[in-house]
Amino acid sequence: MAKIAVLLEDLFEDSEFLKPFEAFKEKGHDVVVIGTKIKTVTGMKKYTKVEIEKEIKDVKEKDFDALFIPGGYSPDKLRIYDEVLAFVKDFMKEEKPVFAICHGSQILISADVLKNRKVTGWKSIKQDLINAKATFIDDKVVVDKNLISSRMPDDLPYFIEECLKKLNEL
Amino acid sequence: MAKIAVLLEDLFEDSEFLKPFEAFKEKGHDVVVIGTKIKTVTGMKKYTKVEIEKEIKDVKEKDFDALFIPGGYSPDKLRIYDEVLAFVKDFMKEEKPVFAICHGSQILISADVLKNRKVTGWKSIKQDLINAKATFIDDKVVVDKNLISSRMPDDLPYFIEECLKKLNEL
Repeated sequence: MAKIAVLLEDLFEDSEFLKPFEAFKEKGHDVVVIGTKIKTVTGMKKYTKVEIEKEIKDVKEKDFDALFIPGGYSPDKLRIYDEVLAFVKDFMKEEKPVFAICHGSQILISADVLKNRKVTGWKSIKQDLINAKATFIDDKVVVDKNLISSRMPDDLPYFIEECLKKLNEL
Repeated sequence: MAKIAVLLEDLFEDSEFLKPFEAFKEKGHDVVVIGTKIKTVTGMKKYTKVEIEKEIKDVKEKDFDALFIPGGYSPDKLRIYDEVLAFVKDFMKEEKPVFAICHGSQILISADVLKNRKVTGWKSIKQDLINAKATFIDDKVVVDKNLISSRMPDDLPYFIEECLKKLNEL
Protein backbone atom coordinates (compact mmCIF):
# COMPACT_ATOMS: atom_id res chain seq x y z
CA MET A 1 0.00 0.00 0.00
CA ALA A 2 1.04 3.62 -0.47
CA LYS A 3 2.36 6.05 2.12
CA ILE A 4 0.67 9.40 1.53
CA ALA A 5 1.81 12.79 2.89
CA VAL A 6 -0.96 15.32 3.62
CA LEU A 7 -0.11 19.02 4.02
CA LEU A 8 -2.45 20.68 6.52
CA GLU A 9 -2.90 23.92 8.45
CA ASP A 10 -5.77 25.73 10.14
CA LEU A 11 -8.80 26.69 8.03
CA PHE A 12 -8.58 23.63 5.77
CA GLU A 13 -11.89 22.79 4.08
CA ASP A 14 -13.19 20.01 6.31
CA SER A 15 -14.67 17.61 3.72
CA GLU A 16 -11.77 18.12 1.30
CA PHE A 17 -9.46 16.70 3.97
CA LEU A 18 -11.79 14.17 5.62
CA LYS A 19 -13.35 12.40 2.65
CA PRO A 20 -10.15 11.57 0.73
CA PHE A 21 -8.34 10.83 4.05
CA GLU A 22 -11.02 8.29 5.01
CA ALA A 23 -11.12 6.78 1.50
CA PHE A 24 -7.32 6.35 1.46
CA LYS A 25 -7.28 4.74 4.92
CA GLU A 26 -10.19 2.45 4.04
CA LYS A 27 -8.20 1.07 1.11
CA GLY A 28 -5.32 0.34 3.47
CA HIS A 29 -3.04 3.26 2.56
CA ASP A 30 -0.92 4.90 5.25
CA VAL A 31 -1.68 8.63 5.56
CA VAL A 32 0.61 10.99 7.51
CA VAL A 33 -0.59 14.51 8.37
CA ILE A 34 2.24 17.03 8.04
CA GLY A 35 2.30 20.68 9.12
CA THR A 36 4.74 23.36 10.13
CA LYS A 37 4.62 22.27 13.77
CA ILE A 38 3.08 19.62 16.02
CA LYS A 39 -0.32 21.02 17.04
CA THR A 40 -4.04 20.59 16.51
CA VAL A 41 -5.38 22.27 13.37
CA THR A 42 -9.02 23.20 12.84
CA GLY A 43 -11.16 23.07 9.70
CA MET A 44 -13.05 26.14 8.49
CA LYS A 45 -16.58 24.75 8.18
CA LYS A 46 -17.40 22.00 10.63
CA TYR A 47 -14.41 22.84 12.83
CA THR A 48 -12.91 19.35 12.40
CA LYS A 49 -9.86 18.94 14.65
CA VAL A 50 -6.81 17.14 13.27
CA GLU A 51 -3.47 16.41 14.93
CA ILE A 52 -0.34 17.28 12.95
CA GLU A 53 1.79 14.11 13.19
CA LYS A 54 5.04 15.28 11.60
CA GLU A 55 6.74 18.64 11.19
CA ILE A 56 7.74 19.59 7.66
CA LYS A 57 11.40 20.00 8.77
CA ASP A 58 11.47 16.31 9.80
CA VAL A 59 10.12 14.78 6.56
CA LYS A 60 11.49 14.07 3.09
CA GLU A 61 9.72 13.30 -0.16
CA LYS A 62 11.72 10.04 -0.26
CA ASP A 63 9.73 8.75 2.72
CA PHE A 64 6.40 8.94 0.80
CA ASP A 65 4.74 7.59 -2.33
CA ALA A 66 2.23 10.39 -2.88
CA LEU A 67 1.25 13.90 -1.76
CA PHE A 68 -2.25 15.20 -0.97
CA ILE A 69 -3.07 18.92 -0.56
CA PRO A 70 -6.60 19.68 0.71
CA GLY A 71 -8.13 23.12 0.10
CA GLY A 72 -9.67 25.90 2.17
CA TYR A 73 -7.27 28.54 3.47
CA SER A 74 -4.74 25.98 4.70
CA PRO A 75 -2.69 26.20 1.44
CA ASP A 76 -2.39 30.00 1.78
CA LYS A 77 -0.91 29.52 5.25
CA LEU A 78 1.46 26.74 4.20
CA ARG A 79 2.94 28.29 1.09
CA ILE A 80 4.92 30.93 2.95
CA TYR A 81 7.34 28.23 4.16
CA ASP A 82 10.37 27.37 2.00
CA GLU A 83 10.44 23.81 3.43
CA VAL A 84 6.86 23.25 2.24
CA LEU A 85 7.68 24.47 -1.27
CA ALA A 86 10.86 22.36 -1.44
CA PHE A 87 8.89 19.28 -0.30
CA VAL A 88 6.22 19.82 -2.99
CA LYS A 89 8.83 20.51 -5.69
CA ASP A 90 10.49 17.16 -4.94
CA PHE A 91 7.24 15.22 -5.49
CA MET A 92 6.70 16.98 -8.82
CA LYS A 93 10.33 16.45 -9.86
CA GLU A 94 10.14 12.73 -9.04
CA GLU A 95 6.74 12.55 -10.80
CA LYS A 96 5.14 10.97 -7.74
CA PRO A 97 1.34 11.34 -7.49
CA VAL A 98 0.25 14.80 -6.31
CA PHE A 99 -3.43 15.36 -5.43
CA ALA A 100 -4.63 18.97 -5.05
CA ILE A 101 -8.19 20.19 -4.55
CA CYS A 102 -9.76 23.68 -4.40
CA HIS A 103 -7.07 26.13 -3.15
CA GLY A 104 -4.53 23.27 -2.94
CA SER A 105 -2.88 24.32 -6.19
CA GLN A 106 -1.85 27.64 -4.60
CA ILE A 107 1.09 25.76 -3.11
CA LEU A 108 1.97 24.41 -6.56
CA ILE A 109 1.99 27.99 -7.90
CA SER A 110 4.38 29.15 -5.19
CA ALA A 111 6.55 26.07 -5.78
CA ASP A 112 6.62 27.07 -9.47
CA VAL A 113 5.82 23.60 -10.82
CA LEU A 114 2.75 24.25 -12.97
CA LYS A 115 4.26 25.47 -16.23
CA ASN A 116 2.49 23.72 -19.14
CA ARG A 117 0.58 21.45 -16.75
CA LYS A 118 -3.16 20.86 -17.00
CA VAL A 119 -4.83 21.75 -13.73
CA THR A 120 -8.06 22.88 -12.12
CA GLY A 121 -8.88 24.58 -8.83
CA TRP A 122 -11.38 26.82 -7.03
CA LYS A 123 -12.54 29.61 -9.34
CA SER A 124 -10.97 32.38 -7.22
CA ILE A 125 -7.48 31.14 -8.16
CA LYS A 126 -8.21 30.64 -11.86
CA GLN A 127 -6.26 33.75 -12.94
CA ASP A 128 -3.35 32.80 -10.64
CA LEU A 129 -3.17 29.37 -12.28
CA ILE A 130 -3.25 30.89 -15.78
CA ASN A 131 -0.59 33.45 -14.79
CA ALA A 132 1.54 30.54 -13.51
CA LYS A 133 1.49 29.24 -17.13
CA ALA A 134 -0.73 26.28 -16.30
CA THR A 135 -3.58 25.24 -18.59
CA PHE A 136 -6.69 25.83 -16.49
CA ILE A 137 -9.50 23.35 -17.16
CA ASP A 138 -12.93 23.93 -15.62
CA ASP A 139 -13.81 20.30 -14.92
CA LYS A 140 -14.64 18.17 -11.89
CA VAL A 141 -11.32 16.36 -12.03
CA VAL A 142 -8.24 16.90 -14.19
CA VAL A 143 -5.60 14.19 -14.53
CA ASP A 144 -2.27 15.28 -16.02
CA LYS A 145 0.23 12.46 -15.57
CA ASN A 146 1.13 12.46 -11.83
CA LEU A 147 -0.98 15.54 -11.06
CA ILE A 148 -4.67 15.15 -10.14
CA SER A 149 -6.74 18.23 -9.30
CA SER A 150 -10.34 19.19 -8.56
CA ARG A 151 -12.29 22.41 -7.95
CA MET A 152 -14.43 22.01 -4.82
CA PRO A 153 -16.21 19.70 -2.35
CA ASP A 154 -18.85 18.72 -4.95
CA ASP A 155 -16.06 17.20 -7.04
CA LEU A 156 -14.86 14.91 -4.23
CA PRO A 157 -16.31 11.61 -5.53
CA TYR A 158 -14.53 12.07 -8.90
CA PHE A 159 -11.35 13.34 -7.23
CA ILE A 160 -11.19 10.38 -4.83
CA GLU A 161 -11.88 7.88 -7.62
CA GLU A 162 -8.97 9.20 -9.73
CA CYS A 163 -6.63 9.40 -6.72
CA LEU A 164 -7.35 5.77 -5.77
CA LYS A 165 -6.83 4.69 -9.37
CA LYS A 166 -3.44 6.45 -9.42
CA LEU A 167 -2.44 4.86 -6.10
CA ASN A 168 -3.33 1.43 -7.49
CA GLU A 169 -0.85 1.99 -10.31
CA LEU A 170 2.06 2.31 -7.84
CA MET B 1 -13.86 65.36 1.45
CA ALA B 2 -13.55 62.06 -0.44
CA LYS B 3 -16.14 59.32 -0.86
CA ILE B 4 -14.37 55.97 -0.42
CA ALA B 5 -15.69 52.55 -1.47
CA VAL B 6 -14.59 49.59 0.70
CA LEU B 7 -14.91 46.03 -0.63
CA LEU B 8 -15.66 43.58 2.19
CA GLU B 9 -16.69 39.97 2.80
CA ASP B 10 -16.45 37.49 5.67
CA LEU B 11 -13.00 36.63 7.05
CA PHE B 12 -11.56 40.12 6.45
CA GLU B 13 -8.54 40.88 8.64
CA ASP B 14 -10.13 42.94 11.40
CA SER B 15 -7.48 45.62 11.95
CA GLU B 16 -6.83 46.02 8.22
CA PHE B 17 -10.43 47.10 7.82
CA LEU B 18 -10.98 48.91 11.12
CA LYS B 19 -7.88 51.08 11.44
CA PRO B 20 -7.96 52.68 7.97
CA PHE B 21 -11.79 52.92 8.17
CA GLU B 22 -11.57 54.84 11.46
CA ALA B 23 -8.70 57.04 10.20
CA PHE B 24 -10.63 57.95 7.03
CA LYS B 25 -13.81 58.76 9.01
CA GLU B 26 -11.86 60.80 11.55
CA LYS B 27 -10.55 63.02 8.75
CA GLY B 28 -14.10 63.58 7.57
CA HIS B 29 -14.13 61.25 4.57
CA ASP B 30 -17.28 59.34 3.68
CA VAL B 31 -16.71 55.57 3.67
CA VAL B 32 -19.23 53.15 2.13
CA VAL B 33 -18.93 49.41 2.81
CA ILE B 34 -19.76 47.38 -0.31
CA GLY B 35 -20.27 43.63 -0.63
CA THR B 36 -22.04 41.11 -2.81
CA LYS B 37 -25.23 41.35 -0.75
CA ILE B 38 -26.70 43.26 2.20
CA LYS B 39 -25.69 41.26 5.29
CA THR B 40 -23.40 41.34 8.30
CA VAL B 41 -19.82 40.22 7.60
CA THR B 42 -17.44 38.98 10.27
CA GLY B 43 -13.68 39.50 10.64
CA MET B 44 -11.31 36.55 11.01
CA LYS B 45 -9.45 37.51 14.17
CA LYS B 46 -11.47 39.55 16.61
CA TYR B 47 -14.74 38.65 14.90
CA THR B 48 -15.57 42.29 14.20
CA LYS B 49 -19.09 42.61 12.76
CA VAL B 50 -19.65 45.04 9.87
CA GLU B 51 -22.84 45.80 7.96
CA ILE B 52 -22.63 45.77 4.17
CA GLU B 53 -24.30 49.05 3.13
CA LYS B 54 -24.45 48.66 -0.64
CA GLU B 55 -24.55 45.71 -3.00
CA ILE B 56 -21.92 45.68 -5.75
CA LYS B 57 -24.66 45.49 -8.42
CA ASP B 58 -26.02 48.87 -7.22
CA VAL B 59 -22.77 50.89 -7.26
CA LYS B 60 -20.59 52.46 -9.92
CA GLU B 61 -17.01 53.68 -9.80
CA LYS B 62 -18.32 57.13 -10.85
CA ASP B 63 -20.02 57.50 -7.45
CA PHE B 64 -16.70 57.30 -5.57
CA ASP B 65 -13.35 59.08 -5.33
CA ALA B 66 -11.26 56.16 -4.06
CA LEU B 67 -11.30 52.40 -3.43
CA PHE B 68 -10.05 50.52 -0.36
CA ILE B 69 -9.52 46.73 -0.25
CA PRO B 70 -8.73 45.28 3.21
CA GLY B 71 -6.99 41.89 3.50
CA GLY B 72 -7.65 38.56 5.19
CA TYR B 73 -9.63 36.01 3.18
CA SER B 74 -12.29 38.55 2.15
CA PRO B 75 -10.53 39.30 -1.21
CA ASP B 76 -10.48 35.58 -2.12
CA LYS B 77 -14.25 35.47 -1.62
CA LEU B 78 -14.91 38.70 -3.55
CA ARG B 79 -12.79 38.03 -6.61
CA ILE B 80 -15.04 35.32 -7.99
CA TYR B 81 -17.65 38.00 -8.91
CA ASP B 82 -17.44 39.66 -12.33
CA GLU B 83 -19.14 42.82 -10.95
CA VAL B 84 -16.37 43.17 -8.34
CA LEU B 85 -13.66 42.83 -10.97
CA ALA B 86 -15.37 45.33 -13.31
CA PHE B 87 -15.73 47.83 -10.42
CA VAL B 88 -12.02 47.54 -9.54
CA LYS B 89 -10.95 47.77 -13.19
CA ASP B 90 -12.84 51.06 -13.54
CA PHE B 91 -10.97 52.66 -10.60
CA MET B 92 -7.64 51.61 -12.09
CA LYS B 93 -8.65 52.79 -15.57
CA GLU B 94 -9.72 56.19 -14.21
CA GLU B 95 -6.52 56.33 -12.11
CA LYS B 96 -8.50 56.99 -8.96
CA PRO B 97 -6.76 56.11 -5.68
CA VAL B 98 -6.79 52.36 -4.92
CA PHE B 99 -5.62 51.19 -1.48
CA ALA B 100 -4.88 47.44 -1.07
CA ILE B 101 -3.36 45.71 1.96
CA CYS B 102 -2.27 42.11 2.61
CA HIS B 103 -4.40 39.80 0.38
CA GLY B 104 -6.20 42.85 -1.08
CA SER B 105 -4.13 42.73 -4.25
CA GLN B 106 -5.60 39.30 -5.08
CA ILE B 107 -8.60 41.17 -6.48
CA LEU B 108 -6.25 43.33 -8.58
CA ILE B 109 -4.68 40.15 -9.99
CA SER B 110 -8.06 38.73 -11.00
CA ALA B 111 -9.02 42.12 -12.48
CA ASP B 112 -5.81 41.95 -14.51
CA VAL B 113 -4.68 45.49 -13.71
CA LEU B 114 -1.20 44.95 -12.25
CA LYS B 115 0.97 44.66 -15.35
CA ASN B 116 4.12 46.76 -14.84
CA ARG B 117 2.76 48.19 -11.59
CA LYS B 118 4.80 48.37 -8.39
CA VAL B 119 2.98 46.59 -5.60
CA THR B 120 3.39 44.75 -2.33
CA GLY B 121 1.18 42.30 -0.42
CA TRP B 122 1.19 39.42 2.08
CA LYS B 123 4.09 37.06 1.38
CA SER B 124 1.82 34.12 0.46
CA ILE B 125 0.71 35.97 -2.70
CA LYS B 126 4.19 37.15 -3.74
CA GLN B 127 4.50 34.62 -6.58
CA ASP B 128 0.95 35.39 -7.76
CA LEU B 129 1.84 39.11 -7.97
CA ILE B 130 5.05 38.37 -9.87
CA ASN B 131 3.18 36.01 -12.24
CA ALA B 132 0.65 38.84 -12.83
CA LYS B 133 3.61 40.86 -14.23
CA ALA B 134 3.65 43.27 -11.29
CA THR B 135 6.92 44.41 -9.74
CA PHE B 136 6.77 43.00 -6.20
CA ILE B 137 8.46 45.21 -3.60
CA ASP B 138 8.95 43.86 -0.06
CA ASP B 139 8.36 47.13 1.80
CA LYS B 140 5.92 48.44 4.42
CA VAL B 141 4.15 50.64 1.90
CA VAL B 142 4.50 50.95 -1.86
CA VAL B 143 3.12 53.99 -3.70
CA ASP B 144 2.85 53.69 -7.49
CA LYS B 145 0.84 56.64 -8.80
CA ASN B 146 -2.81 55.94 -7.79
CA LEU B 147 -2.03 52.52 -6.29
CA ILE B 148 -0.99 52.23 -2.62
CA SER B 149 -0.27 48.81 -1.12
CA SER B 150 1.04 47.28 2.11
CA ARG B 151 1.89 43.79 3.35
CA MET B 152 0.25 43.21 6.75
CA PRO B 153 -1.26 44.70 9.93
CA ASP B 154 2.17 45.88 11.18
CA ASP B 155 2.38 48.16 8.14
CA LEU B 156 -0.92 49.92 8.93
CA PRO B 157 0.51 53.23 10.26
CA TYR B 158 2.55 53.71 7.05
CA PHE B 159 -0.32 52.52 4.84
CA ILE B 160 -2.82 54.89 6.48
CA GLU B 161 -0.39 57.83 6.28
CA GLU B 162 0.10 57.38 2.52
CA CYS B 163 -3.63 56.81 1.90
CA LEU B 164 -4.53 60.04 3.74
CA LYS B 165 -1.84 61.93 1.82
CA LYS B 166 -3.30 60.67 -1.47
CA LEU B 167 -6.84 61.60 -0.40
CA ASN B 168 -5.61 65.14 0.43
CA GLU B 169 -4.39 65.50 -3.15
CA LEU B 170 -7.93 65.01 -4.51
